[in-house]
Amino acid sequence: MSENIKVIAFDADDTLWVNETYFREAELEFAKLLAKYETANKIDQELFKTEIKNLKHYGYGVKGFVLSMVECALDLSNYQINQRTIEEILKIGKEMLEKPIELLDGVEEVLEKLQEKFKLIVATKGDLLDQERKLEKSNLSKYFHHIEVMSDKKEKDYKKLIKHLDIESSELLMIGNSLKSDVLPLIEIGASAIHIPFHTTWIHEEVTDDKSSKSNYITLLNIKEVTSLL
Amino acid sequence: MSENIKVIAFDADDTLWVNETYFREAELEFAKLLAKYETANKIDQELFKTEIKNLKHYGYGVKGFVLSMVECALDLSNYQINQRTIEEILKIGKEMLEKPIELLDGVEEVLEKLQEKFKLIVATKGDLLDQERKLEKSNLSKYFHHIEVMSDKKEKDYKKLIKHLDIESSELLMIGNSLKSDVLPLIEIGASAIHIPFHTTWIHEEVTDDKSSKSNYITLLNIKEVTSLL
Repeated sequence: MSENIKVIAFDADDTLWVNETYFREAELEFAKLLAKYETANKIDQELFKTEIKNLKHYGYGVKGFVLSMVECALDLSNYQINQRTIEEILKIGKEMLEKPIELLDGVEEVLEKLQEKFKLIVATKGDLLDQERKLEKSNLSKYFHHIEVMSDKKEKDYKKLIKHLDIESSELLMIGNSLKSDVLPLIEIGASAIHIPFHTTWIHEEVTDDKSSKSNYITLLNIKEVTSLL
Repeated sequence: MSENIKVIAFDADDTLWVNETYFREAELEFAKLLAKYETANKIDQELFKTEIKNLKHYGYGVKGFVLSMVECALDLSNYQINQRTIEEILKIGKEMLEKPIELLDGVEEVLEKLQEKFKLIVATKGDLLDQERKLEKSNLSKYFHHIEVMSDKKEKDYKKLIKHLDIESSELLMIGNSLKSDVLPLIEIGASAIHIPFHTTWIHEEVTDDKSSKSNYITLLNIKEVTSLL
């Protein structure tokens, strides 16, 4: 890890608070609503395909997820899906947007310590309003200089972030649960990264071992261990 | 206008490029799709109501607009809306996200001149990916330090922006087409603002004369006039 870290960027979903769990629950509800048309497994697969196909239109976040559920429901039911079921799907989305925030263990004490020495920011994908609202609900805003909601987390996006922050790559440390989004692209551009896995990972965020084994990054089991490193 | 402007923030939609026109076209298409259930006028009103009701869930942008159209179609048709029509609504949304960028007259020459003396940013509401993509398509990225997609444009949001930029209120000038979003809140917090009206304004962005007459701001008919002021 670089010696001259100035800014620490935290991923939000599944790094600061629980999120993926809510998507899994929504997918289960969706599969129940479509149970008479397909097996749960097939529904899951088709929804995932629709989401990936639509990423280029909608980007990440709950709103695009709901639009993909509607599209997938029309498709899987061969346009037989009941109109009330479509309303149910919209409701799943609104409920996701209203979930309470459940902080992960140790988050607050780590932020409290790190803010003394570093500029802390949140760097997250998803819907802008949704992510801002979650940060507000989390009561963690006071620790962060600001929140960066990113349309993607590839190398070019982190380069843009670094330019925006007016710092050098070597001055940025990213902490997050996704190897693909929060760790590997940072190592590639000469920044530092700490990986803290969450028990559930969206399949789109998974990477092959081959890709990850070539990179140098630190893996921790709990965010609390960060303070002893810095 | 303040003497010590450091950062000029440009609204994007209907200030740099055409946008509201595309929403008006989408609303017309939507009214056609629902023509057998209600008059065009009633459909327009109900869609607007649904959008405003959903703003707190979805925020601004095309994705929330599409979700509101689906909800409104279910509601206005008393759940009789054909499933294929729902697919048509999703298609309207995808088409909106793929519209070409039509720059407004004079924009590029103004940015070219101003970038020599000021830090320029884009400050816009809407969907993150959509706004970033439009900026890229516009070929205007090179003039801007970065783009700020904002979940709202009220006083508190501009205060956050100023904190994020590490500047004083008096060092910010905002240029945009919406009195309500791009002008009045800035005057309130001690920043400067220039109003450049666009021929079409979403009713949600309109303000009463009473509110606007109390404030000091400059109105220009064309963005080209900005350079002679600064």
